[in-house]
Amino acid sequence: MGEFDLIRTFFTHPVRRAALGVGDDCALLAPTPGMQLAVSSDMLVEGRHFFADVAPLRLGHKALAVNLSDLAACGARPLAFTLALSLPRADAAWVAAFAEGLLALADAHDCELIGGDTTQGPLNICITVFGEVPAGQALLRSGARAGDDIYVSGSLGDARLALEALQGRLALPPETLAAARLRLEMPTPRVALGQALRGIASSALDLSDGLLGDLGHILAQSRVGACIDTRLTSPLLAAGLPNDAELVRQCTLAGGDDYELCFTAAPALRAQVAATALASDTPVTRIGSVQSQTGLRLLDAQGQEMLKRYASFDHFSV
Amino acid sequence: MGEFDLIRTFFTHPVRRAALGVGDDCALLAPTPGMQLAVSSDMLVEGRHFFADVAPLRLGHKALAVNLSDLAACGARPLAFTLALSLPRADAAWVAAFAEGLLALADAHDCELIGGDTTQGPLNICITVFGEVPAGQALLRSGARAGDDIYVSGSLGDARLALEALQGRLALPPETLAAARLRLEMPTPRVALGQALRGIASSALDLSDGLLGDLGHILAQSRVGACIDTRLTSPLLAAGLPNDAELVRQCTLAGGDDYELCFTAAPALRAQVAATALASDTPVTRIGSVQSQTGLRLLDAQGQEMLKRYASFDHFSV
Repeated sequence: MGEFDLIRTFFTHPVRRAALGVGDDCALLAPTPGMQLAVSSDMLVEGRHFFADVAPLRLGHKALAVNLSDLAACGARPLAFTLALSLPRADAAWVAAFAEGLLALADAHDCELIGGDTTQGPLNICITVFGEVPAGQALLRSGARAGDDIYVSGSLGDARLALEALQGRLALPPETLAAARLRLEMPTPRVALGQALRGIASSALDLSDGLLGDLGHILAQSRVGACIDTRLTSPLLAAGLPNDAELVRQCTLAGGDDYELCFTAAPALRAQVAATALASDTPVTRIGSVQSQTGLRLLDAQGQEMLKRYASFDHFSV
Repeated sequence: MGEFDLIRTFFTHPVRRAALGVGDDCALLAPTPGMQLAVSSDMLVEGRHFFADVAPLRLGHKALAVNLSDLAACGARPLAFTLALSLPRADAAWVAAFAEGLLALADAHDCELIGGDTTQGPLNICITVFGEVPAGQALLRSGARAGDDIYVSGSLGDARLALEALQGRLALPPETLAAARLRLEMPTPRVALGQALRGIASSALDLSDGLLGDLGHILAQSRVGACIDTRLTSPLLAAGLPNDAELVRQCTLAGGDDYELCFTAAPALRAQVAATALASDTPVTRIGSVQSQTGLRLLDAQGQEMLKRYASFDHFSV
């Protein structure tokens, strides 16, 4: 297993913020006074969260991106992360590319790798990420109020479009597939938007399992209902599925793996929401409103309530 | 995958210390002013760190114990942990027992489960643990000085004795096997001792890969050498291997999976070391001394330097 020791060197990266990084029993972090520590942990398993043949650089990116997305959903600033990695083989080229994708995203968000573990076994990536947020200012799922607007960042359904194509259930023009695949394999965590929404959004979460299911968590924890306009369509979905409005809707509402933010804010704050979207260079779309009547109601293009239900997407099975 | 949602209920446990526990995008921790946060992450893979048929209660215990052992090695007080779990099947009885073992140890150390992830895949357990330590007082691997005494807690080699027997390489009396197997499958993290050693130990780490290899990390990071008395023998090894002094020595020096602490302290502090051992109800044995000459020298029962080398034990392969 000496090769696994060698592999750790790919992840040896200068540490600035931690008092002590990789190489002791624990890493030591000195929290900023007045800040709360936000912690999230996600495990990615081959065949369930990614295909065995995914480019390792993209996998390294995604493994951290899905964790940063959780920090974004809380409005936290990324600080550091640990990486535990189970690898079937000591494949130096694979690990070098994985580390490159991982550390490039980490550097872009000034988020330090402070510790971890490497072992032999079925491919499995577990990252625990730490961020900080001023005490009491974290964005929670429980704060939505009747009358609030509901927003999503970016576009929804692109990752699911790629998945449908990669699994052979539909054919896409090469450039549409490439763009959709990038959205599936290298999602952009909305870190700047999440922090900018502190004090503006009344609730927030990140969309990993699909809009309807995830929004359901906000509604349940806030004890409210909502009405959603289903006309929202990503440009990639429109290009890839010009003749299948139903599949477009399904990808949008229950596609999964979007890693966009869904959040609520009072209508009086529309100008501030627009300003944060602009300042964080992140498109934001208002898609509905919170209602005191529980349940989730969907409106079609004519503004009529739809009766169809969309199952939440629990990652993919290959 | 609805059953996996159900399984999460086994881990739903009252949270007192965290501002926000399981159920939002992140858990929120409010660090104590003046304290540093100690963080460690360990991943346990079936077939590499445990046998497929290990009792799930014991596995739950061990998965947290090996992480608490890292906190102990830093002298940190446990606060909280996250659990990411990949399971081949939604087996409620298995998960209930796993959670029982895990949460019993967590409660014993007042260490809260604050978040995590459950997914389907090959059995894999990744825990990230958080503790706190007064700023600047963490026990590091780099502080050993020439002239310091070298100590270990508890007894070494018992886990390896069990492993040799379970893999059919030797036969043990049933009661010896049962006792050794308990040491392999339910190690005791030396949490109280680690905290009590703050201000006394000049360096420390926990023994997971075997005494010689792990002590080598202290020596390398402290840029010193050491001389070790190899007569140390655990009662279980003496009982299980009455006629194989060489295998006893191998299990003791390079057995692995001990989760005992190895630490150094100035000879002037021998009384304090003895007092911390007593106060933390943890046996401690002085086994050698740090020397300015680099390298690790082993002394036999006659006090003569041994020439034999012992390879470090990098967990087990089944």
